[in-house]
Amino acid sequence: MLNAVGRDIPNELDGRKLKPFKGAFSFKPKKRLYAPPMKAVFPGEEKLISLKEAVKKFVDDGMTISFHHHLRNGDAVVNMVVNEIAKQDIKDIKLAPTALFPVHEGLKEHIKNGVVTAIEGSLNGPLGEFASYGNIPHTVVLRSHGGRARAVRAGELHVDVAFLAASMADDYGNANGMFGKSAFGAMGFAFADSMHADRVVIVTDNLQPYPIAPISISQTFVDNVVVVDSIGDPSGIQTGTMRITRSPARLNIAKNVVKFLAKAGLLKDGFSFQAGAGGTSLAVTKFLHDYMKAKGIVGDFVMGGITGYVVDMLEQGTTKRILDGQDFDLRAVESIGRNPNHVEVSHIDFGDPHTGGCIVNRQTACFLGATEFDLNFNVNVNTHSDGLLLHGIGGHQDAAAGSFVTIIVAPLLRGRIPVIRKEVTTVSTPGETVDVIVTDRGIAINPRREDLIEAVKGKMEIVEIEELYKKAKSLVGEPKEPNFSDEIIGIIEYRDGTILDVVRRLK
Amino acid sequence: MLNAVGRDIPNELDGRKLKPFKGAFSFKPKKRLYAPPMKAVFPGEEKLISLKEAVKKFVDDGMTISFHHHLRNGDAVVNMVVNEIAKQDIKDIKLAPTALFPVHEGLKEHIKNGVVTAIEGSLNGPLGEFASYGNIPHTVVLRSHGGRARAVRAGELHVDVAFLAASMADDYGNANGMFGKSAFGAMGFAFADSMHADRVVIVTDNLQPYPIAPISISQTFVDNVVVVDSIGDPSGIQTGTMRITRSPARLNIAKNVVKFLAKAGLLKDGFSFQAGAGGTSLAVTKFLHDYMKAKGIVGDFVMGGITGYVVDMLEQGTTKRILDGQDFDLRAVESIGRNPNHVEVSHIDFGDPHTGGCIVNRQTACFLGATEFDLNFNVNVNTHSDGLLLHGIGGHQDAAAGSFVTIIVAPLLRGRIPVIRKEVTTVSTPGETVDVIVTDRGIAINPRREDLIEAVKGKMEIVEIEELYKKAKSLVGEPKEPNFSDEIIGIIEYRDGTILDVVRRLK
Repeated sequence: MLNAVGRDIPNELDGRKLKPFKGAFSFKPKKRLYAPPMKAVFPGEEKLISLKEAVKKFVDDGMTISFHHHLRNGDAVVNMVVNEIAKQDIKDIKLAPTALFPVHEGLKEHIKNGVVTAIEGSLNGPLGEFASYGNIPHTVVLRSHGGRARAVRAGELHVDVAFLAASMADDYGNANGMFGKSAFGAMGFAFADSMHADRVVIVTDNLQPYPIAPISISQTFVDNVVVVDSIGDPSGIQTGTMRITRSPARLNIAKNVVKFLAKAGLLKDGFSFQAGAGGTSLAVTKFLHDYMKAKGIVGDFVMGGITGYVVDMLEQGTTKRILDGQDFDLRAVESIGRNPNHVEVSHIDFGDPHTGGCIVNRQTACFLGATEFDLNFNVNVNTHSDGLLLHGIGGHQDAAAGSFVTIIVAPLLRGRIPVIRKEVTTVSTPGETVDVIVTDRGIAINPRREDLIEAVKGKMEIVEIEELYKKAKSLVGEPKEPNFSDEIIGIIEYRDGTILDVVRRLK
Repeated sequence: MLNAVGRDIPNELDGRKLKPFKGAFSFKPKKRLYAPPMKAVFPGEEKLISLKEAVKKFVDDGMTISFHHHLRNGDAVVNMVVNEIAKQDIKDIKLAPTALFPVHEGLKEHIKNGVVTAIEGSLNGPLGEFASYGNIPHTVVLRSHGGRARAVRAGELHVDVAFLAASMADDYGNANGMFGKSAFGAMGFAFADSMHADRVVIVTDNLQPYPIAPISISQTFVDNVVVVDSIGDPSGIQTGTMRITRSPARLNIAKNVVKFLAKAGLLKDGFSFQAGAGGTSLAVTKFLHDYMKAKGIVGDFVMGGITGYVVDMLEQGTTKRILDGQDFDLRAVESIGRNPNHVEVSHIDFGDPHTGGCIVNRQTACFLGATEFDLNFNVNVNTHSDGLLLHGIGGHQDAAAGSFVTIIVAPLLRGRIPVIRKEVTTVSTPGETVDVIVTDRGIAINPRREDLIEAVKGKMEIVEIEELYKKAKSLVGEPKEPNFSDEIIGIIEYRDGTILDVVRRLK
């Protein structure tokens, strides 16, 4: 069964029936939201318990437990909870983190021992590689940020217990990520889980008198509160990719993005965009800010992944508001705690397609990376050309589907590896939602977007995507195909729950 | 079938099976929350429509529509929507407002014409009187603020369409009540409906560019946005009862409340209470503030119904935080828009008993009024001694159940009518949750609260409640019984959904 991006999707896999992807806006849900059980905490009942007690009280063999990844590579909560689960000899756990990082590599031991047998969530680095070689018993499921929120709300990703790290909480479970020694800023990933997990445990290293403010997660959603020494190291939020690129080629890509937006007539009052991390995206943000400031343009909002570069825009008046689901550096964390125009939003708000309308729908533009893109404008952000599953989808699908103009920023080559392919190794985001590809060796526009082609005609050099392909081929030839077996180790869900692609085991 | 407060509750009424009240904390729910249908608003779809279109799109015969009452007697939205429904010849509507006021008296015509045939919500004034004489076809159902939030979340009060007034909104449905010409402050009542109604329509008279901030109601919950000339007159928020009493007797009651709390050792750092409106409650707030300020006592929070008197406490340091579900004057409205320690909360947060713990559970004290109280400490706030149903329950049951000390403030007599009764005409709040009654002619403590009796022993004169009864009787004799028929016109639900009492038709 070939889906709408030409991938062969099995009818059933690992006990789950799969619906093939039929187009970015072809599926409207008829279901109801998942309804968690009602709680009843009466006056006088206390909610503070130890992690040991929380695991004993709520976790059992075969359950699904969830986490957010706001502390990214500094997170200590996933390891702490899974270690406690292992200690209590509980087996066959499905992990449903929003994302895992190199810091979670120790989970490999728990997978080998049968404590963890399934992961649904973004796999960044070593655990992705581990999955690529078939080491995780169940098929891993990757979802976009908005798609995961949707899946939790739909009950397709049913969470038995959510363990939600908070850098500030009170003993009744009101929680935020904005203050405290481990402050990480917006808590966008935690909202869907707090509202739809059957049980919710706040894990904090900063207990403050009741009631704290601001209240990101309300006490009413929380079963218990666990106090630990440290939920992690917030310096792990800011990884190496959070600096503006110094590569002249990539700086040139960033300049061309701004030039394209200006030539297309989109850079005017009201402009909004999705910011991201990564050296090129950061450069785009910086150059946009400079351009808008010079021209006196005031944008409506920037949606993030927020960095200090976006905080500059708010503070210097090139955007009116920041909508913030997660923070990528400590300047952003500091800003959200004090600026009322720096607004915390959930990842339901950000990108859940099965709502009354998510924020991405209102973005003028977004700038997204790629490990590969292809002649159909399909984009891969999950696997590398060698087939290794090394990254999550992030907000890629969501931003691409929602934004008026989706711009992929990528070099044409990475060393001797072409980024442009005839067909991407893995379809992470369908080409029908990708509009412009800005490389260091030319800009291509998706032929579906005649309006954009028309808008920049004669103002800027645009090339056919086939030309980019030929250029890459002439420089480095065809790349080696990955050494895949037939076995499927991962599913790439589209944000609406249909299946975009599968990832196969490497030999 | 007699319930736990001795009231005869039928097994079934108006097609609904009734569960008798068995005690304030006897019922723990085994159900799940009500799950509304998923929505799907895709990029490019617009959400602005006219009221006419919204009614046409969503409302049909026999449906339940809901409203919040933050504009109180200044509200224009209920009348506007029901008039449009009548115009479209739709019949048999159940109204589920959080409360109705004299300004809604025009609904009588729609009830007579069969447009509206049922009301579940607080009835203040003329519509309550109208119900008392049997003029509403279906039995009216009265719930506390927390109880209503619970009922909506449980699906027991299933809302087909919520029409939610907002004093500020954008065209995608993000909404608040804090800014604009019709600003009313916190939007606490709107949260449960926004999350659990099948359809949500924001009605605003102040459309602002996307995205507004702060966001009280998220766009993701909203189906459509309707712009009207005026959602109402915010001066109607502040009614005559929002001034401190000038009656020496009532001022004395207020002083005695503060004295009681001080003598009982409760007025110390960390103190928290529920503020309210009404001349005596306002005086209590003022006197508490004065006392705490003089003694250097800093409270943790005040929950409201917020007025300028509570804003004084926050600004002058006698409380650290305000938790605010609704505002009772324009100073409170102004404060919530700018002070990060003046925190908007929902009525789920405030008082829903079937959550992970609501705010009332954490209150040291609350001060509540009464139309009657009785020898069992039961309190009536719904009917008068003549049997007329003239008031809603408000947060009365919730505050009483949650607070460490529940204090009823009431005169012993109102003119020639005793406020103390052998048995109250209607049980609005069960005596087991009422601790202290402070009247102008003596203070009684519920014998269940031996701790409080012990705490003030020898420090303050306390009387048996029977003495208060005898005193009233000696002054004005026994009051006339209301002239009730057998027919039941109203149900008084306890906050957990069991039935406390019924209200009968007046002959």
